[in-house]
Amino acid sequence: MFFLTPVLVAVVCILIVWIFKNGDGSSKRRKGEPRARAEVHPWVDEDLKDNTDLHQGEEGNPLIPELQASQPSGGLELDDGRSKNQLLNIQEHDANDWQESEEDVEHIPFSHTRYPEKEMVKRSQEFYALLSKRRSVRFISNEQVPMEVIDNVIKTAGTAPSGAHTEPWTFVVVKDPDVKHKIREIIEEEEEINYLKRMGRQWVTDLKKLRTNWVKEYLDTAPVLILIFKQVHGVAASGKRKVHYYNEISVSIACGLLLAALQNAGLVTVTTTPLNCGPRLRVLLGRPTNEKLLMLLPVGYASKEATVPNLTRKPVDQIRVTV
Amino acid sequence: MFFLTPVLVAVVCILIVWIFKNGDGSSKRRKGEPRARAEVHPWVDEDLKDNTDLHQGEEGNPLIPELQASQPSGGLELDDGRSKNQLLNIQEHDANDWQESEEDVEHIPFSHTRYPEKEMVKRSQEFYALLSKRRSVRFISNEQVPMEVIDNVIKTAGTAPSGAHTEPWTFVVVKDPDVKHKIREIIEEEEEINYLKRMGRQWVTDLKKLRTNWVKEYLDTAPVLILIFKQVHGVAASGKRKVHYYNEISVSIACGLLLAALQNAGLVTVTTTPLNCGPRLRVLLGRPTNEKLLMLLPVGYASKEATVPNLTRKPVDQIRVTV
Repeated sequence: MFFLTPVLVAVVCILIVWIFKNGDGSSKRRKGEPRARAEVHPWVDEDLKDNTDLHQGEEGNPLIPELQASQPSGGLELDDGRSKNQLLNIQEHDANDWQESEEDVEHIPFSHTRYPEKEMVKRSQEFYALLSKRRSVRFISNEQVPMEVIDNVIKTAGTAPSGAHTEPWTFVVVKDPDVKHKIREIIEEEEEINYLKRMGRQWVTDLKKLRTNWVKEYLDTAPVLILIFKQVHGVAASGKRKVHYYNEISVSIACGLLLAALQNAGLVTVTTTPLNCGPRLRVLLGRPTNEKLLMLLPVGYASKEATVPNLTRKPVDQIRVTV
Repeated sequence: MFFLTPVLVAVVCILIVWIFKNGDGSSKRRKGEPRARAEVHPWVDEDLKDNTDLHQGEEGNPLIPELQASQPSGGLELDDGRSKNQLLNIQEHDANDWQESEEDVEHIPFSHTRYPEKEMVKRSQEFYALLSKRRSVRFISNEQVPMEVIDNVIKTAGTAPSGAHTEPWTFVVVKDPDVKHKIREIIEEEEEINYLKRMGRQWVTDLKKLRTNWVKEYLDTAPVLILIFKQVHGVAASGKRKVHYYNEISVSIACGLLLAALQNAGLVTVTTTPLNCGPRLRVLLGRPTNEKLLMLLPVGYASKEATVPNLTRKPVDQIRVTV
């Protein structure tokens, strides 16, 4: 029985099981295995996530780790001192209404300014008129801006709702010219790597032309860079991880308020999400590993020569449906 | 050689390969396999994602599929009519600055209102004062609100920046009492399933007490519900998928502007992310499968008896670091 020698049987069995198992998970990549070149979509949301725990240089970093000691307090602390009922109620609320843990805090009457209808309409028109003038501006003058205004716009961003009132945001305001320049170096360097990895052989002839797009001059010229970090979890007093529900959505909403506040104050910015730069910028700024970079906003006055692409927005009947 | 019979060799080989392959992917769950009960964290961002393609009832749905025919136009269309250079430039921009495809559109001088420093500070203070009064309010009166105001706040939300200027949002305004009630039924029903699945045996004794939290009366009483959908991709004129870069972050920023605009107009809301309700609500409202529910905001005036939990926000030095 030549066909059933043990060696042949072994080979056939290995092949069969191998093929079967591969077929089962063919669409999954193995951990650490790079995506096929054709599949690279570095702009999708998941790539924003900073999954690395880049520790080098974190100890002894001279850059103000002001917040590192003061872990977020307040909000809910899921430690063992809480009854199961309390915990249960918190979870129920969190998943739905972003409601704070109502069982624990006093409820107070809500007072709200109500305007006559005519005034409501006028206010809503004026606010729309103000925000509709906002544009992403990449040409930012090096003139200083009042820091009181920067504080106020960050305080405004901090009024955003957040899952279970966890307030999972850290706003790092960079004024130091050396740090701004280091940020620029990191971002321009990573851009180049992004470019080479993403575009590769296909686009090499255009390298020179594109290089001009890597130049992020505003990172040096803007008097203030605001780097917005999402805290993917908190740390309770007990040392346990505290869940930060819907942290990315919460921090993005806060960024929306920040953009509105900047526009209201007469400052300009451009919304950027520096690709793959999160870990290095986090280390540079001495932020802990539970914080991941979500956005970087260079802030200042528009330079005199600033231009913007002549784009329009969709009319309301293309974004709104009424039922 | 008893130990090397073909059958034994076959069994051993199958086992070895099986174990090897399983060890390789032990941390991955197989498609469709439910998570272990202990691992259920329905509040994390990924659970918001509506991955189902729930088609039943989509054909012949009487509810205004107004936008279905008018796929988002404008912005960038990655069809084959574009040169590789143009495509390359778009990709480069998208990944970083959310810049529009600059090569294609004229650039125009940017004009911006600049205020004297004193006025900037005052404006930023006043805007902070306005937004700091915003609270999540669950007690909403059934009084009607001016629809012009609703239009203006949605137009304001539509001024948000978006990855590659794709404007990947749809705002569904529900006024019809029957549809509002159906939405309530779906949400309260899913809540119950969430509860039973999530809490299970551990918390059954508290079922009665919790049930009161499932009651979402505001879904009936609020004169307007705004359901915000993110378009996870677009459809180009050629019929190809159009990538919607950073769509969740973009739409969340738009929701931030929406919340600011509502507060400015004197209306109240509560930010909700109805867990697991996305597919059913999408079908109810006749939205296409590329749209996923991100948020639901009941909008109106606060009812006279409205209360809010007596919570505070973190002071600015707990959310801001200066470098």
